[in-house]
Amino acid sequence: MSKKPWQGRFRHDTSDVMERFSQSVSFDKRLYRQDIEGSIAHARMLGERGIIPKEDARLIIEGLENIRNQIEDDSFNWDPSLEDVHMNIESALTRQIGDAGSRLHTSRSRNDQVGLDFRMYLREEARRIRDLLVELLRVIIEKAGEYSGTFMPGYTHLQRAQPILLSHHLMAYFEMFRRDHGRLAGFMNTLSASPLGSGALAGTSFPIDREMTANELGFSEVSRNSMDAVSDRDFVAEFLFAAALCQIHLSRLAEEIILWASTEFSFVALPDSYSTGSSMMPQKKNPDSAELIRGKTGRMIGNLTSLLVTLKGLPMAYNRDLQEDKEPTFDSVDTLSGSLEVMAGLLAGSSFDRERLETATVDGFITATDLADYLVQKGVPFRNAHEITGKIVRDCLDKGRVLSQMSVDELRTFSEYFNEDALKILTVQASLDKKDVPGGTAPARVQDAMEEARAFLAQIDTD
Amino acid sequence: MSKKPWQGRFRHDTSDVMERFSQSVSFDKRLYRQDIEGSIAHARMLGERGIIPKEDARLIIEGLENIRNQIEDDSFNWDPSLEDVHMNIESALTRQIGDAGSRLHTSRSRNDQVGLDFRMYLREEARRIRDLLVELLRVIIEKAGEYSGTFMPGYTHLQRAQPILLSHHLMAYFEMFRRDHGRLAGFMNTLSASPLGSGALAGTSFPIDREMTANELGFSEVSRNSMDAVSDRDFVAEFLFAAALCQIHLSRLAEEIILWASTEFSFVALPDSYSTGSSMMPQKKNPDSAELIRGKTGRMIGNLTSLLVTLKGLPMAYNRDLQEDKEPTFDSVDTLSGSLEVMAGLLAGSSFDRERLETATVDGFITATDLADYLVQKGVPFRNAHEITGKIVRDCLDKGRVLSQMSVDELRTFSEYFNEDALKILTVQASLDKKDVPGGTAPARVQDAMEEARAFLAQIDTD
Amino acid sequence: MSKKPWQGRFRHDTSDVMERFSQSVSFDKRLYRQDIEGSIAHARMLGERGIIPKEDARLIIEGLENIRNQIEDDSFNWDPSLEDVHMNIESALTRQIGDAGSRLHTSRSRNDQVGLDFRMYLREEARRIRDLLVELLRVIIEKAGEYSGTFMPGYTHLQRAQPILLSHHLMAYFEMFRRDHGRLAGFMNTLSASPLGSGALAGTSFPIDREMTANELGFSEVSRNSMDAVSDRDFVAEFLFAAALCQIHLSRLAEEIILWASTEFSFVALPDSYSTGSSMMPQKKNPDSAELIRGKTGRMIGNLTSLLVTLKGLPMAYNRDLQEDKEPTFDSVDTLSGSLEVMAGLLAGSSFDRERLETATVDGFITATDLADYLVQKGVPFRNAHEITGKIVRDCLDKGRVLSQMSVDELRTFSEYFNEDALKILTVQASLDKKDVPGGTAPARVQDAMEEARAFLAQIDTD
Amino acid sequence: MSKKPWQGRFRHDTSDVMERFSQSVSFDKRLYRQDIEGSIAHARMLGERGIIPKEDARLIIEGLENIRNQIEDDSFNWDPSLEDVHMNIESALTRQIGDAGSRLHTSRSRNDQVGLDFRMYLREEARRIRDLLVELLRVIIEKAGEYSGTFMPGYTHLQRAQPILLSHHLMAYFEMFRRDHGRLAGFMNTLSASPLGSGALAGTSFPIDREMTANELGFSEVSRNSMDAVSDRDFVAEFLFAAALCQIHLSRLAEEIILWASTEFSFVALPDSYSTGSSMMPQKKNPDSAELIRGKTGRMIGNLTSLLVTLKGLPMAYNRDLQEDKEPTFDSVDTLSGSLEVMAGLLAGSSFDRERLETATVDGFITATDLADYLVQKGVPFRNAHEITGKIVRDCLDKGRVLSQMSVDELRTFSEYFNEDALKILTVQASLDKKDVPGGTAPARVQDAMEEARAFLAQIDTD
Repeated sequence: MSKKPWQGRFRHDTSDVMERFSQSVSFDKRLYRQDIEGSIAHARMLGERGIIPKEDARLIIEGLENIRNQIEDDSFNWDPSLEDVHMNIESALTRQIGDAGSRLHTSRSRNDQVGLDFRMYLREEARRIRDLLVELLRVIIEKAGEYSGTFMPGYTHLQRAQPILLSHHLMAYFEMFRRDHGRLAGFMNTLSASPLGSGALAGTSFPIDREMTANELGFSEVSRNSMDAVSDRDFVAEFLFAAALCQIHLSRLAEEIILWASTEFSFVALPDSYSTGSSMMPQKKNPDSAELIRGKTGRMIGNLTSLLVTLKGLPMAYNRDLQEDKEPTFDSVDTLSGSLEVMAGLLAGSSFDRERLETATVDGFITATDLADYLVQKGVPFRNAHEITGKIVRDCLDKGRVLSQMSVDELRTFSEYFNEDALKILTVQASLDKKDVPGGTAPARVQDAMEEARAFLAQIDTD
Repeated sequence: MSKKPWQGRFRHDTSDVMERFSQSVSFDKRLYRQDIEGSIAHARMLGERGIIPKEDARLIIEGLENIRNQIEDDSFNWDPSLEDVHMNIESALTRQIGDAGSRLHTSRSRNDQVGLDFRMYLREEARRIRDLLVELLRVIIEKAGEYSGTFMPGYTHLQRAQPILLSHHLMAYFEMFRRDHGRLAGFMNTLSASPLGSGALAGTSFPIDREMTANELGFSEVSRNSMDAVSDRDFVAEFLFAAALCQIHLSRLAEEIILWASTEFSFVALPDSYSTGSSMMPQKKNPDSAELIRGKTGRMIGNLTSLLVTLKGLPMAYNRDLQEDKEPTFDSVDTLSGSLEVMAGLLAGSSFDRERLETATVDGFITATDLADYLVQKGVPFRNAHEITGKIVRDCLDKGRVLSQMSVDELRTFSEYFNEDALKILTVQASLDKKDVPGGTAPARVQDAMEEARAFLAQIDTD
Repeated sequence: MSKKPWQGRFRHDTSDVMERFSQSVSFDKRLYRQDIEGSIAHARMLGERGIIPKEDARLIIEGLENIRNQIEDDSFNWDPSLEDVHMNIESALTRQIGDAGSRLHTSRSRNDQVGLDFRMYLREEARRIRDLLVELLRVIIEKAGEYSGTFMPGYTHLQRAQPILLSHHLMAYFEMFRRDHGRLAGFMNTLSASPLGSGALAGTSFPIDREMTANELGFSEVSRNSMDAVSDRDFVAEFLFAAALCQIHLSRLAEEIILWASTEFSFVALPDSYSTGSSMMPQKKNPDSAELIRGKTGRMIGNLTSLLVTLKGLPMAYNRDLQEDKEPTFDSVDTLSGSLEVMAGLLAGSSFDRERLETATVDGFITATDLADYLVQKGVPFRNAHEITGKIVRDCLDKGRVLSQMSVDELRTFSEYFNEDALKILTVQASLDKKDVPGGTAPARVQDAMEEARAFLAQIDTD
Repeated sequence: MSKKPWQGRFRHDTSDVMERFSQSVSFDKRLYRQDIEGSIAHARMLGERGIIPKEDARLIIEGLENIRNQIEDDSFNWDPSLEDVHMNIESALTRQIGDAGSRLHTSRSRNDQVGLDFRMYLREEARRIRDLLVELLRVIIEKAGEYSGTFMPGYTHLQRAQPILLSHHLMAYFEMFRRDHGRLAGFMNTLSASPLGSGALAGTSFPIDREMTANELGFSEVSRNSMDAVSDRDFVAEFLFAAALCQIHLSRLAEEIILWASTEFSFVALPDSYSTGSSMMPQKKNPDSAELIRGKTGRMIGNLTSLLVTLKGLPMAYNRDLQEDKEPTFDSVDTLSGSLEVMAGLLAGSSFDRERLETATVDGFITATDLADYLVQKGVPFRNAHEITGKIVRDCLDKGRVLSQMSVDELRTFSEYFNEDALKILTVQASLDKKDVPGGTAPARVQDAMEEARAFLAQIDTD
């Protein structure tokens, strides 16, 4: 067991049980890059301000770069008895460069250090996840383009409701993931303030330059209150929430893919490369990728719950409970990244069955609303038109017929407002064309929406 | 049981069990104002565009205004068999004005209607809650001003750590609630698009003017995809999250108030008007207000969980599951509003005990970090200085002494770097004064922070 | 505002804001019956033990019975400024019978009183919910009997997997709800100990007879530690968990009903009485009852989360946070009761379409596993048999054929072990008959399972 | 990439992205012992029943035992492209023993296999956790014995309420953890039925003996419905719930330890071996062990939420979503085990400060309830006695006095019922002695409770 850097005041060693229980290096070593980058900026500032000798600052920076290399070529020895990534790196530094290393932690506490590292980590991950979202948005718009013109039943309550375009349906997911993309942009704004220099809770006694380190590390401002800075985990909660909501959107698309890939729907054929088989049943090809994405919504909501529960009722300022912010976050980062990648691959490799989709739309009653609207246009109040049409539908059901089998004379037994032109409005194409409002499923409107979406993606590329 | 507006197609009545189970009017009548406002804008637009007769539009608007009055003077008869607030109002309208009322629902579905109403509702409530947050911010800054200069122990791990100013401590909460205030501003931006005109899921067949209704109702744009528009509840999730996180901040302050009001701390005396007694123990005065605020964090996290679970795995577009978005939202609105009001009153009425706070700070070891920093300033590497100071502390503990009882000679047995000036840095005031960094607890820095905060509040007032 | 019973020690009144925020009578009046029953037993015991005059005990009991009548005929005046159901009833009693009423609370605290009332409440509700579960179990077994012999595709991953009996499928839900029924039985055992007599936290100074009240109120023992007794909410958490898990089972059945009622599956026709229509689309008949049951799973999980969060980190003994145990519980009781009733009605009124179910089963590859098993019986190791069959399936898919169209000669090109008898095992009936293991879907085995289930229900009736 | 055992039917390989996303072997290899034990029983039965050659069964058993050794001496090569622990072991077996290995999976699916393994795993872990609970119970009773007779303030609302014994306070936790112990016993009963033989969902075509494998593997019965058996995760939910509730109990004790270890309370001194220091502040000794236990309540509730969300709305039978049951469970097993061990060590090493505890009890008003009870015994109705005493307390507060400073004459100005003997009942010892009811804090009652507890532990030892 290595000596703890804080052991001066203690008489007895940490028990083995406690050491295992409280160490975090097994997972927080994932922050090594941010930790080293932050320490380099801190050391440079200490040197510039004459708080430590310039030469020591140089040695520290060089030493930290060496350690980064050691970690990256896997020759670094992580020691759980040194608790966390911060102490592991600082201890190695001092072993490697001597006294200068012992000066690194001047005017700093693990409390502001970990706040800094974790913000930097999430800034990078949020950026990466936004890129994955853009990839998925691109796949969606490509698929929408590929099946431009293909129509299908639109569902509410999983009942066929009105004809829509497949591309309109897919573009609904474009909107969801666009919001997720925007939410992560908003999230990154909440990461604008550097906590470094807040010390353990009160600030520091040394004449440090907080703006200097903040700027070097890409922050636009410094935190305004040292006690808040070391105990604030709002940014973690915001990330976990944004990630969970994005996974929920993925779960909706996953659910639809699972439905569509069933024999009963047969709307889509999934790629072998994102499907799996059965250990027992030789004929099975299962949409496991979509099921896993749906199933993992549980852990994403669980991770969010986990952090919120941990934060509840904590007094000021730092409490060790806050160490519990890391693992749910790492898990949500990995789960969401993986789910986005898999969904992009799965969707890109899927083929929709145009014929099945369109055949399913030529359903007996899917244009009933258009029939009611016809009556409205003839002057019948909507609520009456709705009722008349409902009765026609019931009559058809009783007689085992569908709307398109009705003659005008028959229609007129329900309302005298029906004329020859009534039959024309019962076609799917007529129904689609008439949904000619912004956001509607009329083919021209869907084209507009796709163009706007492509422009949105193009603009992101130039950002 | 009233006739359902959709009953045309049905042969059998809804069962009583189902009617009770599925009705939502008992709670969603809370949306009546938004529902009527939205319907008025819709009717006016229908009239303008010639979709319904202008005279009918006038009758509808007048009729809806009457109904609003009836609801507000409690003479409106809510009927659960009419399912929800929307059908109750529409049915009453038709009963009251006849055929014209039957035209109101032209080119509209309950799906886009409820999406509209709920966004308008949350816009109003978010505004109101932001006002309550500003009130609380005002109380905090006033308290911070009232106790300007009072110092107290700063805690980490609930152990005394370093001296801080009480106003610095209070201002940490200012930062938390300021973030909540900003988060709700961001939330209101997510409410910018009107879903009206999205119909059931596909848009509508009528030549409506979506921008017209959007503008009248205070939206800056119209939603881009009709299927997304009727099934999107991201805005509800965002509200529930922002509300839960705000309640967590309240729970932290509540926890501290409970601690401070204990006999052991005795840092604060709570007002009778926010305390309660015991049914059995006559001497008790309990901080129930703070306990309830803390306890209610459960339901706020529960409400968020509730909605996220409901959304998981829902296929497109609208599903009845979405009705479950209302009750948790209403509850979170009420709980957060109440908690903010109570916290403002509780804090405003609390008196801090300056003497207890300051006496607690003159603790044996609270300036130990300053002693270590002293050594660093003499050239000792921080990690060594930390260890030396740790040993001095342990030596004091063993001998039942405190730091200020050490003589310079004794200190020098631990490190030759100690000189006469070492003793001066052990005072609380010296320790505070030295935390002279942005965000630090040095009195001048805290004054700066309070001025910035006052300017922030003043600027909100002029907004 | 009424005078608080604990106001002696206070100088100032409770603020209106606080009164509204902290009152619980608006919801906990639901406990009035248990509260009165508990108080009657307490008063009788106090009289028996001579702690209060026997005559006073008699007056109290009579007075409480009157109050119960007043509450039940709605002539009781609930006063929110009296905080809760307990104080409302005690105050009314004293107003009505004078001094004797002031003796009721002798040797009792609201802490043990509410613990008692809430346990009694949950005991009754758990019993009622178990009855509703039995009703649902009965409906399931009746449906299973009605469709005895009907076969359908069994699904895994929502892909057709192997033929099963519809009654086997339904009986899977019998097992889930039987476990829920058993879980509630276990829950009721955790309610065996009466907390009455634990006082505020320490017990009481009076020579009460705890066993006497426990027996009268149907408890088999008294709680063992007064501090635990007043702050333990394990039983509430257990109930909320059992209720949430039951709702999850309901959500699975609801999901299947929604799928089966889709046009694509068309396995079931739902009763009009548990379906609803659309405000816009006249042809729609939606499975709203099932959707609501599925959607309400959110609040059931949310209610559980809510309580667990509230309990986290509470020090001993009673804290006001515990008041937050009631509303989620009442909501879970109502939600689960309603969902069970609705599911029973929905299922009872549903008609399965035997032809669609059986036609769907005569699918090209659903007996592929039987083909692999055939090879195993000829001596081919299973893993090889699985692979051979997989290749046959792929070959069929490539050629647009199904298994039953293969000749023996063709089969023999994949494996020489195929003989004439291979074709016979490809029928659905053969596949079903062979699943002749306990718990398997062979018709005889399913009959056995249904008999066991009927016996289980019969035995419950005689309990 | 290894060949998938189900690849016969597929044309294209699994994508790398999907392989990484869907593999579970990195975590489910933890089930290797149960998997091998289950497979051995299965192979033995297959041999006995003549379904595979007896010699093959022998080879399989031997081969599996070898693989177990390889895994345990770390020479086994886990291959993520083989998806999970089951396929890794089966593939290795076939590589090592040839054809016989290919027969192992006869009449079995991964669906019943994983259901079996996971039940066996949780049975073992529940047993181990119960042992850890017994250890903690032992520590509690020892501490309670060590401080027998020491009194302290009992708190409600974190306000001093009535005098209690420290051992009474500790024994409240004995009751909580005893319930947890019992809850895990109940949980183990829910694991009584073996799912093996349920196949993928329908049972199996081979004449297997389900009772034989069930008995060999320690199950008392076989599952009753094959579809339920492969998709039921109630047992996992039950475990996660029981574990979360136990952690909540730990969080309450942790909260109290943190409070008691603060300078303000100073009721307890924690062992160095379960405390840690600060990276910046040399004097700090922090109760990190207790904070971590409290903080980890978040993940325990999060894990439960995670599974419940995953289960919501899943249709029958097995879906890949169910793979998500493992990681939260493994995490809850580890977290709870670690927390129990740490709490036992922390508590065992803690020293309570008798003097501080008892001095804190001799508080001005802590026996006010006894004063009220005195009046009741003189015949004053309790509610009046409560009010009189409240006024006495307020009078004392106004005059800066405490109850014991009142003379009888002064008391009599509040009520003529006060006599000389009133002053005697104000002592802590008198107050304690009078709480002489079952479960009360009178020293003799606490002794009884401790004896009962010791008997409970002794009886567990002999079980």
